[in-house]
Amino acid sequence: MPPVSSTKHVSSSPVRDLLALTSRPEVISFAGGLPAPELFDLPGLRMAFHQALSEPTGRDNLQYAPTEGNPALRSLLAARMTGKGLPTTEDDLLVTTGSQQALTLVTAALLGPGSVVAVEEPTYLAALQCFRMAGARVVAVASDGHGMVPEALEEVVRAERPSLVYLVPTFANPAGRTLPAERRAAIAALAAAHDLWVVEDDPYGELRYRGEPIAPLAVGSDNVLHLGSFSKIGAPGLRLGWLRAPESLMGTLVIVKQAADLHTSTVDQAAAAIYLATADLDGHVAALRTAYRSRRDAMVAALPGATPAGTTWTDPDGGMFVWVTLPAGTNTTELLSAALAHDVAYVPGPPFYATTPDQATLRLSFTTNAPDRITEGMARLAEVLR
Amino acid sequence: MPPVSSTKHVSSSPVRDLLALTSRPEVISFAGGLPAPELFDLPGLRMAFHQALSEPTGRDNLQYAPTEGNPALRSLLAARMTGKGLPTTEDDLLVTTGSQQALTLVTAALLGPGSVVAVEEPTYLAALQCFRMAGARVVAVASDGHGMVPEALEEVVRAERPSLVYLVPTFANPAGRTLPAERRAAIAALAAAHDLWVVEDDPYGELRYRGEPIAPLAVGSDNVLHLGSFSKIGAPGLRLGWLRAPESLMGTLVIVKQAADLHTSTVDQAAAAIYLATADLDGHVAALRTAYRSRRDAMVAALPGATPAGTTWTDPDGGMFVWVTLPAGTNTTELLSAALAHDVAYVPGPPFYATTPDQATLRLSFTTNAPDRITEGMARLAEVLR
Repeated sequence: MPPVSSTKHVSSSPVRDLLALTSRPEVISFAGGLPAPELFDLPGLRMAFHQALSEPTGRDNLQYAPTEGNPALRSLLAARMTGKGLPTTEDDLLVTTGSQQALTLVTAALLGPGSVVAVEEPTYLAALQCFRMAGARVVAVASDGHGMVPEALEEVVRAERPSLVYLVPTFANPAGRTLPAERRAAIAALAAAHDLWVVEDDPYGELRYRGEPIAPLAVGSDNVLHLGSFSKIGAPGLRLGWLRAPESLMGTLVIVKQAADLHTSTVDQAAAAIYLATADLDGHVAALRTAYRSRRDAMVAALPGATPAGTTWTDPDGGMFVWVTLPAGTNTTELLSAALAHDVAYVPGPPFYATTPDQATLRLSFTTNAPDRITEGMARLAEVLR
Repeated sequence: MPPVSSTKHVSSSPVRDLLALTSRPEVISFAGGLPAPELFDLPGLRMAFHQALSEPTGRDNLQYAPTEGNPALRSLLAARMTGKGLPTTEDDLLVTTGSQQALTLVTAALLGPGSVVAVEEPTYLAALQCFRMAGARVVAVASDGHGMVPEALEEVVRAERPSLVYLVPTFANPAGRTLPAERRAAIAALAAAHDLWVVEDDPYGELRYRGEPIAPLAVGSDNVLHLGSFSKIGAPGLRLGWLRAPESLMGTLVIVKQAADLHTSTVDQAAAAIYLATADLDGHVAALRTAYRSRRDAMVAALPGATPAGTTWTDPDGGMFVWVTLPAGTNTTELLSAALAHDVAYVPGPPFYATTPDQATLRLSFTTNAPDRITEGMARLAEVLR
């Protein structure tokens, strides 16, 4: 057989390989970034699919459809975003096959070999993989407990001339931190001043367990592309995301999307539109918040007893992740096999770094285990870490 | 706002722009490449989704899932392909978000700027768009009423060193023609001899209205990537396709797929698996064949009266399309507005050419109109063409 082109930068995802190791039922896994399946609104979604596949529109919902997405879904999503402080119309939105696809569409539209992308560290590793696959060079911007430092970004912008800045500003994956309002304004202003695109990846924004919502960066500039997802508030299996982009870029994004998969599943979009129109999504999200808040609390409460002196961690205001930094000299990648031997799993931190990894970091997800399981899992982790 | 990169080769699809013009209900459209919605098995698919979203596996079918695809679906598809003469195992298959996605995955895995792709002419225009977007150079191989000429491909291989050959060998879009067995064997042998990948795009293969099935090219060589689709035998709204690839390439394809959308809709895959396991798909496809055969017959019967002397057309053994070549000097792009004024639509041929278009060609789709509507539409077309 002919060779695969050697110009392609593809390598397997460490998270993916790890997930394979955590499927034994006796393992308490804090590794995956999954929502809790017992909290899915299975009856509500079943009803929505039933209606989507009933007369009078059932046949339309099995047919090819416009690349931009189901108009009713886009309109409902726009109203929801507007209601949450980000004024949006149907025409501002492109429905995507999960927000992962939105990332690849933006990458295909804006980046090429040699492009430069600026990221916070640590950051979402599938985004790093996506940028690298396009041949882009990823540069890190200094970040602290509140996320990317705008002054550091300004230096990187002047020195490296990136085309794109990638951020998970709210309850970041993996760090759990949230970018404050002043930094959001500063980064949006930098984007406008330096003709720079910013991707605001926001799958977790509705999962807030304490404090008040902070306006998205996209409020501050048309240079900010805002990515939303049904995966964490509804269910990931539908692969439904959306991308809010200015008119100047939307035409290109639609053409790239058309080449990618013509359009997102017609039936899944129709079911989601029916669900948004008829179910109590706000009530459902409130229930998610209550459940996840107690899980976060159980994990954070267990951390002092599970880790050695000198360990620090984030206590996130929302989202799915706690980020742990063990004392210098610890190697969490090496410790993982010991953790798996104790039937507990986490994700080592290094793959989330674009440049020099901190070997003493790890990511814990608190969403898929009930509080007592979290307490038990953290006790197992204590045996490995202390 | 920052500029969209000027290195990107994106342009709107003529078919897409045209489809917008044909949505008036009084238009009899032969333009779209859509399956007939009244023939969808709506009750059967509704039942399959209901079961997919019921206990005990309903919650699993809403969760994140493996990139390769639903194992039951892959196993059922492999058995179906094996039964139709292409020996296939679950591990040979990657589930894709429509076969359009399979094209972009293959493109991302194998092509880059400057790569050369060899195609028959005319060919599927979304494939041309996909190759061009990747910066590949598309070269045409001489083709006749039976498809690509192997001797012409051999010359192109020696002169241009393509990385990939793209073919719709069975009931081609747009030409309706089918590549004979001897040419398939010759092209598969060329691929093996010259270390060349071949994409065998096969969305229409099951829609045969006359004659006996011909073995796919993939039977003859592991260098042939075989693309299948649920869109024409089931429904396109689920966006379900599959890609049969050798182990040497599968790892790379899975990583590219992971970056593209993590995985195809879990619920759509589960519903399709249930449908394949429980419905009489062969009976359903037999009913499609009966209906589409009479539509093809109505269109072919009307062509002599609808076109001027010197016109030629394909009389396809299957699929969805008749390809018409009007007398030299005719310009079907210019005639389209006249056709639309007569409330009938077609797709002009030129966009389906990679190189020098034949301005006198057009594509007619016979699938979405009943025979009497086809007869009426062809009478309208006669007023424009004769």
